[in-house]
Amino acid sequence: MTTPNQKTQLSTWFSHLQERICAALECLEEEVDELAPGRFCRKTWKRKDASAPDGGGGTMALMKGRVFEKAGVNVSTVYGEFPPQFAKEIPGAAEDPRFWASGISLVIHPLNPFVPAVHMNTRHIVTSQCWFGGGVDLTPTFEFEQDTADFHQAFRTACDTHDPTYYPRFKAWCDEYFYLPHRQEPRGIGGIFYDNLTSGDTLEGFEKDFAFTRDVGEAFLTIYPNLVRRHMKKPWTEEEKQKQLLKRARYVEFNLLYDRGTRFGLNTGGNVDAILMSLPPLASWA
Amino acid sequence: MTTPNQKTQLSTWFSHLQERICAALECLEEEVDELAPGRFCRKTWKRKDASAPDGGGGTMALMKGRVFEKAGVNVSTVYGEFPPQFAKEIPGAAEDPRFWASGISLVIHPLNPFVPAVHMNTRHIVTSQCWFGGGVDLTPTFEFEQDTADFHQAFRTACDTHDPTYYPRFKAWCDEYFYLPHRQEPRGIGGIFYDNLTSGDTLEGFEKDFAFTRDVGEAFLTIYPNLVRRHMKKPWTEEEKQKQLLKRARYVEFNLLYDRGTRFGLNTGGNVDAILMSLPPLASWA
Repeated sequence: MTTPNQKTQLSTWFSHLQERICAALECLEEEVDELAPGRFCRKTWKRKDASAPDGGGGTMALMKGRVFEKAGVNVSTVYGEFPPQFAKEIPGAAEDPRFWASGISLVIHPLNPFVPAVHMNTRHIVTSQCWFGGGVDLTPTFEFEQDTADFHQAFRTACDTHDPTYYPRFKAWCDEYFYLPHRQEPRGIGGIFYDNLTSGDTLEGFEKDFAFTRDVGEAFLTIYPNLVRRHMKKPWTEEEKQKQLLKRARYVEFNLLYDRGTRFGLNTGGNVDAILMSLPPLASWA
Repeated sequence: MTTPNQKTQLSTWFSHLQERICAALECLEEEVDELAPGRFCRKTWKRKDASAPDGGGGTMALMKGRVFEKAGVNVSTVYGEFPPQFAKEIPGAAEDPRFWASGISLVIHPLNPFVPAVHMNTRHIVTSQCWFGGGVDLTPTFEFEQDTADFHQAFRTACDTHDPTYYPRFKAWCDEYFYLPHRQEPRGIGGIFYDNLTSGDTLEGFEKDFAFTRDVGEAFLTIYPNLVRRHMKKPWTEEEKQKQLLKRARYVEFNLLYDRGTRFGLNTGGNVDAILMSLPPLASWA
């Protein structure tokens, strides 16, 4: 099982990644001329758990900038006991409801409708079992072939370094997961999605999966700023902005109707502001 | 059980009420000066049912005006068979999955942040049982005591004419139903909500419940235009508009996370445009 030392490594990695991502996005804010560049505001929060005086907590970093209309980058390390009705749904929790979980989660809604929105999340969960999960997916309003190809390539490389089966499985899983059945349309152009990933409950297994998790973060940190730079200075029309607002409405529909993390968090008394930080600054159902 | 003649009475009433409400709202559009007055666009749709060539359908009436940023008034009369997994949840459908349902449903999002948003729905459902259901609730961004009092009084009167127990029960049911647990806040200032209403499967029972249903529609038709007129010419600031967009975001959260009608409709292959017509033209999660 995940040791105290490994838990520290995990939560430290997620926090460092948060800082590096925030710095990279603030850098992009410097690269356009109008208005003052956006800066992240950080807010720490403590989780309330009926079963224990200390349930962990997290740090939300939120920026409302001139490149990023809304960017939320959250880390959290939480622990306690799952409520009985949810314990049943979680691997290894039916036997013992105690859990420990640490992760990073971000959603970025750019101002410019030509810059794609993005989501990234990686996490480690410990019950009587332990595993990694995560995903990255891109949601352009206007699709650019080169962006799509480069985005997929970045995560293909991150996957292939660790296991040749990862990329095809995790890409297909992403397409399946980020899909709006009532609209019969995908949320965006996909990426990767994985859950219950474990290469064995051994030191080697942990090291392998943690290294993959880190590479997913590194790939994000490399590819996304590149995609932003390609489009962030393009002018846009009212009509193009309106298309973005309609696309964002689909994002809201997905997150509130289908996203397991969102529904789970809201149903288990998670931090509402952190959970709903993914929702766009402005959306339209015209 | 509801006879063919009664079914015709019901669907005719709902359609006439739709026309009268659309006319009343278009009237209000004439009472402000800027831009061209909004007009309802009607669109009929046919329901697809795997179990029968004809599953009924409906008429959506949608207006994007200068008083009403978005007003959707829908009627539908649908029939067929519930899918097995849903039949279990519906009174009288476990025995026989066939159903018939007719109703009116509207959601109005005014442009002016001082004019309250409103929802109204009444319906009749027939399985191996038959009953009425409905509700009306008001969602102001800025609450005015007199509006709240007058709105509640209108539906209190509609209720009290038919049964002294209705108003206290249906008001409490409304407060309970239109509530966002994750925000620990009500959707608006309430109104009435009722379901599975039947005064007995007799001619008298049907007449009594149908008369109540009509009076709920009449009360709406009287009170809402009055509330609109009180505020529709008031000037507003950017800040006040932003408050309205934030309030509308809560509306989206309620409809996508909790509203049984929305979730049921989407999960049973209903008309997506009609179901999601309730969502606001613009909303903000700042």
